[in-house]
Amino acid sequence: MKLNILGCYSATPRVNTNSTSQVLEIKNHLFLIDCGEGTQVLLRKHKIKFNRIKHIFISHLHGDHFFGLVGLISTFRLLGREADLHIHAPKGLKEVIVLQMKLSESWTNYNLYFHELTATTSQLIFEDDKVEVHTIPLDHRIYTNGFLFKEKPGERKLDMNAVLNANIDVAYYRKLKQGFDVPNNNGQLIQNTTVTLPPESPKSYAFCSDTAYTEAILPIINNATTLYHESTFLEQHSKLANPTKHSTAKQAAIIAKLANVQQLILGHYSTRYHDLNQFKIEAETIFENVHLAKDGKVFQF
Amino acid sequence: MKLNILGCYSATPRVNTNSTSQVLEIKNHLFLIDCGEGTQVLLRKHKIKFNRIKHIFISHLHGDHFFGLVGLISTFRLLGREADLHIHAPKGLKEVIVLQMKLSESWTNYNLYFHELTATTSQLIFEDDKVEVHTIPLDHRIYTNGFLFKEKPGERKLDMNAVLNANIDVAYYRKLKQGFDVPNNNGQLIQNTTVTLPPESPKSYAFCSDTAYTEAILPIINNATTLYHESTFLEQHSKLANPTKHSTAKQAAIIAKLANVQQLILGHYSTRYHDLNQFKIEAETIFENVHLAKDGKVFQF
Repeated sequence: MKLNILGCYSATPRVNTNSTSQVLEIKNHLFLIDCGEGTQVLLRKHKIKFNRIKHIFISHLHGDHFFGLVGLISTFRLLGREADLHIHAPKGLKEVIVLQMKLSESWTNYNLYFHELTATTSQLIFEDDKVEVHTIPLDHRIYTNGFLFKEKPGERKLDMNAVLNANIDVAYYRKLKQGFDVPNNNGQLIQNTTVTLPPESPKSYAFCSDTAYTEAILPIINNATTLYHESTFLEQHSKLANPTKHSTAKQAAIIAKLANVQQLILGHYSTRYHDLNQFKIEAETIFENVHLAKDGKVFQF
Repeated sequence: MKLNILGCYSATPRVNTNSTSQVLEIKNHLFLIDCGEGTQVLLRKHKIKFNRIKHIFISHLHGDHFFGLVGLISTFRLLGREADLHIHAPKGLKEVIVLQMKLSESWTNYNLYFHELTATTSQLIFEDDKVEVHTIPLDHRIYTNGFLFKEKPGERKLDMNAVLNANIDVAYYRKLKQGFDVPNNNGQLIQNTTVTLPPESPKSYAFCSDTAYTEAILPIINNATTLYHESTFLEQHSKLANPTKHSTAKQAAIIAKLANVQQLILGHYSTRYHDLNQFKIEAETIFENVHLAKDGKVFQF
């Protein structure tokens, strides 16, 4: 998986800081997560191919997470896009986009599908043979979901030396990869685990922004490979975190620890802070594998 | 007058080119004209004080002219703005903005007034003691207005030597500036023009984008100090200009000549052109005082 952080600051885009948007590359998909104002320019800047984006996931309808969407949809049209586009977002966004298209008399020449989210429990919202996407209901001032992107377990791998030694016909290889015991050319039943290796363990990415500290998400994000958890504030401003339904770096780290994730990425910083390293230091008092999101940074895991 | 070109390209914002927005400084007003995506960042970049913008004029509801407005309105709120904000725009924009505020539960804490435009003849839409703003109905694919910003004639200036020689009491100076004949201390009536000088001739700025070539605007923009006229295309692509209701550089120059303006600024270039100087060369075959808009450029006149 490859995660491109296009923007990771809260509130308003500024000259050198962008509001939330990220592109996750997973099993040949490019998923766009949130779409703050200016996202289309950031996609160009980071040379991300517009046409490969077929699904956009919007966490909530605060402007810093979706004001760039209508422009991106329009630009796709101007560029002659033909591929379908699916938007997974809270109910209401479709009305905003359609109203603006109607006023500008600019309909898309590609199929645009809105999948409006309203559930307050985790839902499976996308699935193919390799990937699943689930919502992560978050605790924010308005209806908000995070998203869990999960690889499905792959097939077992053939241990070719063992397979050849066991004298198994090539016609059975597919069954072996699927985990079945198969007969060999001598008529003996060969135990699958003696000739195959386990698949690589599937990876997962949990995007959680914006949210107050909430342990309700732990069962959903448990054991995730990577957790992106918002940390709008440092503990010194913890009194601001609760009424605004945001988190501190320390709270994000507690969630990472309780969920037993492999690594934590912090982001959605308030622009009041100039030294982001303080977020890392604060989180590392609780959880050891902490990284800072930064506009333009790429994570691979 | 001072004109800050924030963005002057058509269609979509890119890494180094921005869609339409400009700030006109006139008689202590800062008027924002159009508001493409990213305008709030450009205002910051060019250090234009957000709070001095009290009137925003939107030509039409194609995205490259207004997608930045909702973000700007939100940012004004986040920055604790208190000053009133007036938006002069085609009918429909209010609904778009209000819907997005409703969905994000983010109301402004300043007064936001929408002045919705529907007239198809030129209207006086703003006036104070020093400035008038009139609409310029344009010919585009959807309902579109340009805007004419006009200084009002100032007061006459006292020719102090002549005033003293004529022995006029200071109590009459104000009447003199207003153009009246006044008595002097000897009881003689003094002709105004013998002791005053004419006011500076009032300046005007006509913003015309987006539009096909239309001579219907000539009576409104006649004798303007500066005309900004869109030139999306060069003549080599004139076949594209008509169906899309845009103009070529040559057509913009013909309008400038027929309207007898002092100078022409070209803009709203299609991003297909890499050498903007061709626009200037083409327009100069018709009209001599041609300037190219450029993102970040400032014109004073």
